[in-house]
Amino acid sequence: MKKVMNQPENIVDEMLEGIVASAPERLRRLSGWNVLIRKDAPVPGKVGLVSGGGSGHEPAHAGFVGEKLLDAAVAGEVFTSPAPDQIFEAIKAVDSGKGVLLIVKNYSGDVMNFDMAADMAEAENISVRQVIVRDDTAIADPEARRGVAGTIFVHKIAGAAAATGKSLEEVADISEKAATSIRSMGVSLSPSIVPESGKPGFTLEKDEMEIGTGIHGEQGMERRTLAPADDLAEELLDYILPELELEAEDNTAVMINGLGSTPLMELFVVNRKVHEILREKNINVECTFVGEYMSSLEMAGFSITLFKLDEECRQLLLQHRT
Amino acid sequence: MKKVMNQPENIVDEMLEGIVASAPERLRRLSGWNVLIRKDAPVPGKVGLVSGGGSGHEPAHAGFVGEKLLDAAVAGEVFTSPAPDQIFEAIKAVDSGKGVLLIVKNYSGDVMNFDMAADMAEAENISVRQVIVRDDTAIADPEARRGVAGTIFVHKIAGAAAATGKSLEEVADISEKAATSIRSMGVSLSPSIVPESGKPGFTLEKDEMEIGTGIHGEQGMERRTLAPADDLAEELLDYILPELELEAEDNTAVMINGLGSTPLMELFVVNRKVHEILREKNINVECTFVGEYMSSLEMAGFSITLFKLDEECRQLLLQHRT
Repeated sequence: MKKVMNQPENIVDEMLEGIVASAPERLRRLSGWNVLIRKDAPVPGKVGLVSGGGSGHEPAHAGFVGEKLLDAAVAGEVFTSPAPDQIFEAIKAVDSGKGVLLIVKNYSGDVMNFDMAADMAEAENISVRQVIVRDDTAIADPEARRGVAGTIFVHKIAGAAAATGKSLEEVADISEKAATSIRSMGVSLSPSIVPESGKPGFTLEKDEMEIGTGIHGEQGMERRTLAPADDLAEELLDYILPELELEAEDNTAVMINGLGSTPLMELFVVNRKVHEILREKNINVECTFVGEYMSSLEMAGFSITLFKLDEECRQLLLQHRT
Repeated sequence: MKKVMNQPENIVDEMLEGIVASAPERLRRLSGWNVLIRKDAPVPGKVGLVSGGGSGHEPAHAGFVGEKLLDAAVAGEVFTSPAPDQIFEAIKAVDSGKGVLLIVKNYSGDVMNFDMAADMAEAENISVRQVIVRDDTAIADPEARRGVAGTIFVHKIAGAAAATGKSLEEVADISEKAATSIRSMGVSLSPSIVPESGKPGFTLEKDEMEIGTGIHGEQGMERRTLAPADDLAEELLDYILPELELEAEDNTAVMINGLGSTPLMELFVVNRKVHEILREKNINVECTFVGEYMSSLEMAGFSITLFKLDEECRQLLLQHRT
């Protein structure tokens, strides 16, 4: 295993120190906790936004703490849910009195621990709402779906909505609506390696890919020989498009998310084909994100996310383009 | 070889289409050429800025076309210099009458072809200046040094200077000064694979690293067992610091550049140590960039770049933080 690290057990702590060192004018660490918050939190008159989860998905979530984005990101150990008291500390630190929205990826540990933290906060009279993100179409049952790269769109929508001074109920409802309009589908070409274990989470043959692998290496839907980029783009969109019931003239946002070690060059090749397919269907793309947003350590592969935009979400998302 | 691509010979063309599709409001492709330019180029009253080189280093250089940045990026085939006529077309497309600055990484093919393009432009009465970037301290002879991640700092400085309406001579002189105040040093943990060849550029043992490898896999200075992150940070800085003659209270900018498949988590661990070392020496870090800026396809590893800032460069660089 080749990792640029010191002791594996210190990697999350040292990463958080490195993140704060990169932007001390914007970020600080909650003393004694694996929590990064906006330096100016709590922001008066603004709903607080907290997300997080296991580490290893950088830049998610700490990279999305900032203006018109999250107020705090809670970092668990690698691929491990953060503890309830850690999340509770984040909630307290960002509540300005206007309440706090939790944005949670749908994994049982995350859902349970964020829920316990919400209870702890409410016991101290902090209003809390939760949005659970379930954008991964690799799972058939919509309730059981994992939260993956589409979570970043929810950060952006919630962040832009909260920045306008909306109430907790309003921000939560908009974020909920956004979350139900987002679908993702991925393909992996190689596994990731958790630093403390030092072993790949799964194995793939030299010419093999897996469709639908989760961002922690959870088993996907199918393994077969690696297909050309254009076929992959088409196949992944075939999972996404019918679910969003997109029609000509509809507005969307596109994300081509690298899982870790796939070069940007290849992500842009995929983006080209995704745009070609959407153009043929007369579906309008308002904005496009290509890069690593929700990674899985050094996993090779990518995911495609589509976000069907109503006018409210379109306006909120476009605030991130300035 | 696992690549998300179609025909390897089309990968640069398809990538460029994918880049334009991601930002059609800002970028366009020069019809018939592998050149991306600002949509509003030539910008009246502004010196034009052109950079480029072989593809495979994304986001360099196309990702740095935009306001306060480049006006055009010329894309060669993977790890191959762009042709003179291609560069010449870019120069013509961005010249507003105020002249054009070429920012060139110090590789013989690039230097020769940018130079020929400059001659072609001058024959048509376009004023051209060139800045050659030689920031890689892995080569002892300063004149023979390669241009690597530090080139991005030159893009930022030249871009901010040109945006203020300075003359070609002024923008070129400032960029030249910046280039001489930047040093980089890298380490690779695994090779990259050029799509058309399908073969790794070199091999490393399971626990081996190479200090000083170039961004095209050029041989480095030394191979040995992978060291802990903190030792690596210290060692790479040991090459850089003496050359910049940094003293207490000096201002710097830091870049921790991922070469392709090294997780952000690991880059931030390095960043933490770099800041710790600079803090001990009382050297001030004005701004920090952590991520992939000048990659080498899927190579694992990273480089550290330090930029010693005088007051003029400090002011110009800070314009990129808003």
